Amino acid sequence: MSPKITTELLKQLRQVMKNPRFVQEPIQAYIVPSGDAHQSEYIAPCDCRRAFISGFDGSAGTAIVTEQHAAMWTDGRYFLQAAHQMDSNWTLMKMGLKDTPTQEDWLVSVLPEGSKVGVDPFIIPADQWKRMSKALRSAGHDLVPVKENLIDTIWSDCPQRPCKPLITLDLSYTGVSWRDKIVALRSKMAERKVMWFVVTALDEVAWLFNLRGSDVEYNPVFFAYAVIGMNTIRLFIDGDRMMDPAVREHLHLDSTLEPEFRIQVMPYGSILSELQAVGAGLSPKEKVWLSDKASYALTEAIPKAYRYLTPYTPICIAKAVKNAAETEGMRRAHIKDAVALCELFNWLEKEVPKGTVTEIVASDKAEEFRSQQKDFVELSFATISSTGPNGAIIHYKPVPETNRTLSVNEIYLLDSGAQYKDGTTDVTRTMHFGTPSAYEKECFTYVLKGHIAVSAAIFPNGTKGHLLDSFARAALWDCGLDYLHGTGHGVGSFLNVHEGPCGISYKTFADEPLEAGMIVSDEPGYYEDGSFGIRIENVVLVIPAETKYNFKNRGSLTFEPLTLVPIQTKMIDVSLLTEKECNWVNEYHQKCREVVGAELERQGRHEALRWLLRETEPLARVQ
Amino acid sequence: MSPKITTELLKQLRQVMKNPRFVQEPIQAYIVPSGDAHQSEYIAPCDCRRAFISGFDGSAGTAIVTEQHAAMWTDGRYFLQAAHQMDSNWTLMKMGLKDTPTQEDWLVSVLPEGSKVGVDPFIIPADQWKRMSKALRSAGHDLVPVKENLIDTIWSDCPQRPCKPLITLDLSYTGVSWRDKIVALRSKMAERKVMWFVVTALDEVAWLFNLRGSDVEYNPVFFAYAVIGMNTIRLFIDGDRMMDPAVREHLHLDSTLEPEFRIQVMPYGSILSELQAVGAGLSPKEKVWLSDKASYALTEAIPKAYRYLTPYTPICIAKAVKNAAETEGMRRAHIKDAVALCELFNWLEKEVPKGTVTEIVASDKAEEFRSQQKDFVELSFATISSTGPNGAIIHYKPVPETNRTLSVNEIYLLDSGAQYKDGTTDVTRTMHFGTPSAYEKECFTYVLKGHIAVSAAIFPNGTKGHLLDSFARAALWDCGLDYLHGTGHGVGSFLNVHEGPCGISYKTFADEPLEAGMIVSDEPGYYEDGSFGIRIENVVLVIPAETKYNFKNRGSLTFEPLTLVPIQTKMIDVSLLTEKECNWVNEYHQKCREVVGAELERQGRHEALRWLLRETEPLARVQ
Repeated sequence: MSPKITTELLKQLRQVMKNPRFVQEPIQAYIVPSGDAHQSEYIAPCDCRRAFISGFDGSAGTAIVTEQHAAMWTDGRYFLQAAHQMDSNWTLMKMGLKDTPTQEDWLVSVLPEGSKVGVDPFIIPADQWKRMSKALRSAGHDLVPVKENLIDTIWSDCPQRPCKPLITLDLSYTGVSWRDKIVALRSKMAERKVMWFVVTALDEVAWLFNLRGSDVEYNPVFFAYAVIGMNTIRLFIDGDRMMDPAVREHLHLDSTLEPEFRIQVMPYGSILSELQAVGAGLSPKEKVWLSDKASYALTEAIPKAYRYLTPYTPICIAKAVKNAAETEGMRRAHIKDAVALCELFNWLEKEVPKGTVTEIVASDKAEEFRSQQKDFVELSFATISSTGPNGAIIHYKPVPETNRTLSVNEIYLLDSGAQYKDGTTDVTRTMHFGTPSAYEKECFTYVLKGHIAVSAAIFPNGTKGHLLDSFARAALWDCGLDYLHGTGHGVGSFLNVHEGPCGISYKTFADEPLEAGMIVSDEPGYYEDGSFGIRIENVVLVIPAETKYNFKNRGSLTFEPLTLVPIQTKMIDVSLLTEKECNWVNEYHQKCREVVGAELERQGRHEALRWLLRETEPLARVQ
Repeated sequence: MSPKITTELLKQLRQVMKNPRFVQEPIQAYIVPSGDAHQSEYIAPCDCRRAFISGFDGSAGTAIVTEQHAAMWTDGRYFLQAAHQMDSNWTLMKMGLKDTPTQEDWLVSVLPEGSKVGVDPFIIPADQWKRMSKALRSAGHDLVPVKENLIDTIWSDCPQRPCKPLITLDLSYTGVSWRDKIVALRSKMAERKVMWFVVTALDEVAWLFNLRGSDVEYNPVFFAYAVIGMNTIRLFIDGDRMMDPAVREHLHLDSTLEPEFRIQVMPYGSILSELQAVGAGLSPKEKVWLSDKASYALTEAIPKAYRYLTPYTPICIAKAVKNAAETEGMRRAHIKDAVALCELFNWLEKEVPKGTVTEIVASDKAEEFRSQQKDFVELSFATISSTGPNGAIIHYKPVPETNRTLSVNEIYLLDSGAQYKDGTTDVTRTMHFGTPSAYEKECFTYVLKGHIAVSAAIFPNGTKGHLLDSFARAALWDCGLDYLHGTGHGVGSFLNVHEGPCGISYKTFADEPLEAGMIVSDEPGYYEDGSFGIRIENVVLVIPAETKYNFKNRGSLTFEPLTLVPIQTKMIDVSLLTEKECNWVNEYHQKCREVVGAELERQGRHEALRWLLRETEPLARVQ
């Protein structure tokens, strides 16, 4: 991977930063966040402005360009990747390390007195605007909105915004009709005494209307906003997608529905003016509910006194708790996904020794096996297929320049998942196709201990996920090891593979408490730069736990793994496992055998079934 | 304990809430926080306004009185105590439970439209003011400062503010002179480009000047403020304490020190006007550093643009990391404290079966033994001497009405500590003087497992204490049990027994990372209302840990117990311990034997020594 040469681009950007066609006054710094107008994590090509200006295309990062400097903030997952992709014009700011300045502190340290810092008000979330603006103001600078996106002005071959057909989901997939979701939302609005709710996140729009799209790769969403009143529903969406009879029928666009369920369809681009009109027409006490991560532009459309901002919207919270139809769908999706991976690993075991399987070949093969499964739609994220030192690049994606051939001498890490119409998967397995070293097994076993510690944890109802993060690290910490990422994220139901408001990470404190029906990943790891990467990831469902006692009648929770793919026993140093951990592995493998075995049998995949049976032989614990 | 009858007092308070002598306009609610003007946790009798108005005298709680209601917010430690001490005029708001409203939400739900909510601006911290004020304003109400404290206006026999002599501490206790502390502080000020630092917390004033006092029971502090400039030092303190030749010498008040170390002594009451003068004379860019927990009154004295507020002051952070002299002092103090407790438990073992030892007698006896030790000053908090059901009242203090007699049939919980001139102690032991039930042993053992999990934890440098909290709970959680308080708090060095900025609690996120030299408590528990309480508490020192590997060269930390008092093996169900836990107990007891045994020998306390040797016999693990 050679870095993108950005000298010319930065020169152009610095010119438009002073060009009165685009800025009222010259700006001394321009912030390029990584999101789109919906604060999406995964974005369409036309929104990849930070990647365009810097070359760094990881999923998280913020670029800031001043007259003299260009700096990129990203987290531990991307330190190596960013360093590889950016040229020497850029300074990498490693977030999470003690000596790394915040964006605000850095700006204050490099800017000349009384500077103006510009940002696209549609791209920056309101909460970030507020923090950044306050910090800059207290140092004598100003954060200013720049209406025209300055990257777009220098991006001559910027791709078009996608506008793909929609998929309608019936009750057998969603469990709840969109009208019932609107009713529930309005009841939450009434509780908080708000009159309007603005849906800005793409997955929230999709979930609310039981629609899916494919405007953004990997995330089955479509570009749209919605504004829900107590008696009105406005959907802001472009293209001829609303002409599709199935969509019209699904949304009852042509039937005589009760007025409060009639959907007004409006152009995507009209959201700001419509919202400004709503804002202008509010009577006292009429509040408008927005996520505090909604864009600064939309938030400003509502006068401050009328805003009701929360970190998590009621849709975000409702969406996180999966109902029976969604949970059953997720189970089915994970069984199909396991079938595909059993086929893949069986195939790899035979092919890797021949020396012809590259990371890209393996990745393609994984997609091929998945695509054979019923209701497969697309992958749920870019497959991380990485061997040897590439495994240490936490969010690595193989490209021709880095593409390494799998061998019997290196650890192979595959983090992959798919969107099925009935659920979203995300699984990581770390395999060795030869003989792992004692050290590799030792590290793998610590990671496994951490994985089990979370998966088998029992904790009171109402516990926040971040309180479980250290369980995943204890075995690594004991030996002086650690990993620089969180342990888990919420997973959508045929929706985004990363979703809030819950997760398992030391980084957040404001996560919502875990409750039965939520679905998160459990994915501790260990990475040695230049050598190898290890990660063991299951998607797990929060379920009630039976306990001996029941303090204050609070009830307890634990996790049930939805992912049912063997964990390579060859990589385990059994002597490092406790009896309880050993039993966990054996019971997990027994369940893989029963559930996935039956499906492999049903699909007539006998060779993969034999592989599964061999890989799930019980561990014999060294006494 | 019968509740305080508050009907008449509340009537009087509601009258002054409308009295134009005290309020510009009638107020519809009055907030009575629990702190003093320094946001102290432990307060002088004259500052116990919340206890005066409500009867509830626990260390944490906020009262709010409206025209119709009186409500008290407190945390899990005090639910039972508050319920006992308050009459039916009061509603108890149990913080931390899901359905308990915040003070703001409750006020909004009960106040008539456009209400005014009053509070003493010297008592409410600026950060709380800000939060409360914002929440009230967004609901159409106003938070207003009421200069005269309304409780004081109805408190006819309010005691005088204490003004006791000072103790000077030389280098052998403090390790660093006050002048070097000022130099270090000014260097932190220069780093942040601030010109003034306002010391508002009493323990910070005491630490900075290497002085101690006894104005507040249990906390060796004195009423004072300090304002440190780059070239000036102002100490605001009352009484003739500055006439003491030892103090004058210690502070070099009569010598010709370099001008930047000359201390100007000013009256305590002049802080506000002096600070307003400082505020008025600032030139642009001259910032004033205050804790964001400083009172609203003092914070407002500095114009907003000139304030530099941080959650932890540089003094708070420097004070938390003990130097070699302080650490050695803490070790000595803990050995002396252990001697006293060995004497006590040996004595209790003989006396309890006679049926003559009450909670108060035991508490007094503990103080008597401690007071025999060198450099003993006073207790470090009100001794929690509790047996049977009283043990479940987490911050119980025996009083004649509740005073229970210790017996061979009930669990006894003693949480106690002392101030010695060389250090502060805080230790909890839970003992049974007869035969504990299997269930009591089971619960005790879970608590012990949690205690060990924290004490033996190894974690990377830079880890925040709150990430260790769940380790203390895992064994309890596994069985559906838990405890409703944090696991540990910072401990001062001959200073407050509770101090920031570090601790081990699920409740905070903003704690500073643990580093070698910090001292915290490790005190998980388990409480059954109406039956018993169990807690096992050691004070532990953060030390570097040796690990097999060293990820990213970060280094690792662990804890060394400073408390060296036997943990009653009779209460342990050894079959529930792992081999590692069993070894931990045995090694801990071996150290108690060696270190405390030698001191008991030296002090000629042979009977207590025999008790220690018997109580520290190694556990034989059931295989």
